[in-house]
Amino acid sequence: MSTKDHPSRFERLQSIREACSIDAFLFTSAPVIKWLSGYFYNFEIGPSPFHLLPAGLLVVPEHPLCLVIADNEVLTEPVSVYEISVRPYASYVYEKPLDFSNQFLSTLNEEIVQNHLTCSRIGIEKDSLPFSIAQSFTSRYPKIEFVDVTLEISKLRMVKDPDEIYAISQAARLCDIGQAAVLKHAREGMTELELFSLVRNEMETAAGKRIPVMADVVCGSRTAEGGGNPSDKKIMHGELILSDLTPCLNGYWGDSCNTIVAGEPTILQRKTFTLVKEALDIAVNSIHPGVKAFEIDRLMRRHIGSFPHHGGHGVGTMYHEEPRIVPYNETELLPGMVVALEPAVYHDGYGIRLEHLVVVTQTGCRILTGFSHKFEFI
Amino acid sequence: MSTKDHPSRFERLQSIREACSIDAFLFTSAPVIKWLSGYFYNFEIGPSPFHLLPAGLLVVPEHPLCLVIADNEVLTEPVSVYEISVRPYASYVYEKPLDFSNQFLSTLNEEIVQNHLTCSRIGIEKDSLPFSIAQSFTSRYPKIEFVDVTLEISKLRMVKDPDEIYAISQAARLCDIGQAAVLKHAREGMTELELFSLVRNEMETAAGKRIPVMADVVCGSRTAEGGGNPSDKKIMHGELILSDLTPCLNGYWGDSCNTIVAGEPTILQRKTFTLVKEALDIAVNSIHPGVKAFEIDRLMRRHIGSFPHHGGHGVGTMYHEEPRIVPYNETELLPGMVVALEPAVYHDGYGIRLEHLVVVTQTGCRILTGFSHKFEFI
Repeated sequence: MSTKDHPSRFERLQSIREACSIDAFLFTSAPVIKWLSGYFYNFEIGPSPFHLLPAGLLVVPEHPLCLVIADNEVLTEPVSVYEISVRPYASYVYEKPLDFSNQFLSTLNEEIVQNHLTCSRIGIEKDSLPFSIAQSFTSRYPKIEFVDVTLEISKLRMVKDPDEIYAISQAARLCDIGQAAVLKHAREGMTELELFSLVRNEMETAAGKRIPVMADVVCGSRTAEGGGNPSDKKIMHGELILSDLTPCLNGYWGDSCNTIVAGEPTILQRKTFTLVKEALDIAVNSIHPGVKAFEIDRLMRRHIGSFPHHGGHGVGTMYHEEPRIVPYNETELLPGMVVALEPAVYHDGYGIRLEHLVVVTQTGCRILTGFSHKFEFI
Repeated sequence: MSTKDHPSRFERLQSIREACSIDAFLFTSAPVIKWLSGYFYNFEIGPSPFHLLPAGLLVVPEHPLCLVIADNEVLTEPVSVYEISVRPYASYVYEKPLDFSNQFLSTLNEEIVQNHLTCSRIGIEKDSLPFSIAQSFTSRYPKIEFVDVTLEISKLRMVKDPDEIYAISQAARLCDIGQAAVLKHAREGMTELELFSLVRNEMETAAGKRIPVMADVVCGSRTAEGGGNPSDKKIMHGELILSDLTPCLNGYWGDSCNTIVAGEPTILQRKTFTLVKEALDIAVNSIHPGVKAFEIDRLMRRHIGSFPHHGGHGVGTMYHEEPRIVPYNETELLPGMVVALEPAVYHDGYGIRLEHLVVVTQTGCRILTGFSHKFEFI
């Protein structure tokens, strides 16, 4: 998964370890665990009542990745490009009381001892590391030091490996299916929620399973606010419909937005659509290795005037991640970065936003979302 | 919300504070924050990339509940029976970098200082308290002591206040709509996923918005395993369809299960259904204040033989909570407890599970799920 020019994410992780004099990492956030181990815990129904955490991932040099997960999750096998040792812990039985938190901690502590980490510097994510884990370590092994690597990891995750680009492109395919479904199903008199239900159904059918979907599906004056969850508002004649569809397939996200119209658009709406589409095209055509994130953002705002949100953002195991396409971000884009670009114009009464997902290549970028933005009538 | 006989959850919380010599509480888990403050953050798309936590809830005697949330969440107003002071923090702007984690911590630290808690004992939830919060407190205020109250709170949450029973009954109404939709929509040749999509659509339409739904919707031999996510398996003639529908409405859960058949059941299937239904009726009829959880579990297993999961569980701001209806649980049921009862028989090749949600009353119990278990043919 790596070449001389393009070290893999695992190799890049070792560089942080050396730079920060870290002996091992303990990762606890879902996006980072997915990124490195391939393990994805579907969060759609919230945290399990029988887990301290969905998973903990211990990364020790020269060893397979060590994934600590509940025994009832072992069937959800991680699909990783790296070698993984799965360490299950007993999380729940109905026959007797079981302290899943202690079970998790005992399993993790065994790994700490077996890997000679009792006097080590461990890279952690400070916001997702539970107090109970930190307390368990420091009470047993007072010489363990924690080093927060949240920021460093978020930077490492910017450039995607080929297996990640493939995974994101599969999620982008679901965006295409969803945007086609909006055009196919949207009707006057239908509620935003009814439309969303039909659209999600087509995306889930294509996925062959339930998938998390973040979605702004709004119509009429709600498009002026740029988004929101689908509600029981009905689509009325002449209203715009904004559909920002962000599905998660096996832990990687896609992202896309289109705006259509229920009936005949006004001349101003048509002009606005063209302007936003031009801004998107300008952004796509300006992307190449070395261009800075803020430059892409500025080009869009120069063409259409400013709008009250980012011009885009990185996409991977989180739907919004680095590099953010915002006015202050001096990050240079590099091959393998995946970014969503989403210029918009919001007038009184309606808004138009168009979004594509692209991967930076050696010479420019490749669009991962395959649908076309046309101001189509339903 | 309370009477002399039935202190409210807020009053019961004060009793823990006194028993554990705690000066204040800092709650960080979504179910406890919802329980006390009414604030519900929809977790369907996972944690926000711009929050340290969905919320933090500081509870100081003689003060309104203090809810620390991101400024972009303030519109999601908490609906509480208690007085709340909302403390928003700046979580994200596109114009400049913003460290949402530090913003959250600063806001929380201001509250600690203003409430004279810098040398206090603070009740916390050890598994959901982020290391960054603990570290921020202990580095600034080394005299703060943390006291884990996870277990005590889970016990307090068992008896529901009237507003909670109302909220759960509203979620139970969505279960009824979902179970009716299974009967209405299930057809041979349809996939489990297609069926689930139609069922969820009816529940969401009734709710007027998207809602989290945990659902076992399985057919044929998958019913023998008791559950699983809906897949692309098609419903074949003669197969059973097991539908365990667990929707979350405004942060409170409902729970229900039915089993139906695509065609004509066999004699053994019919006998098994009757047996499971009798077990459920026995359990419902045995519930009264003072009966112990394990006795209800035992009565079901005596009637149908044992089955490889709990006989039931508490339901509230978590879909599985105390009191668990399991062989070892000596907890006495009390008026206001809400429990799901779910006896089952799993044979080779198929399984039948039936579930109702009930609230314990002064004299027995009242069934919150209004649908009837009939072995209906589609």
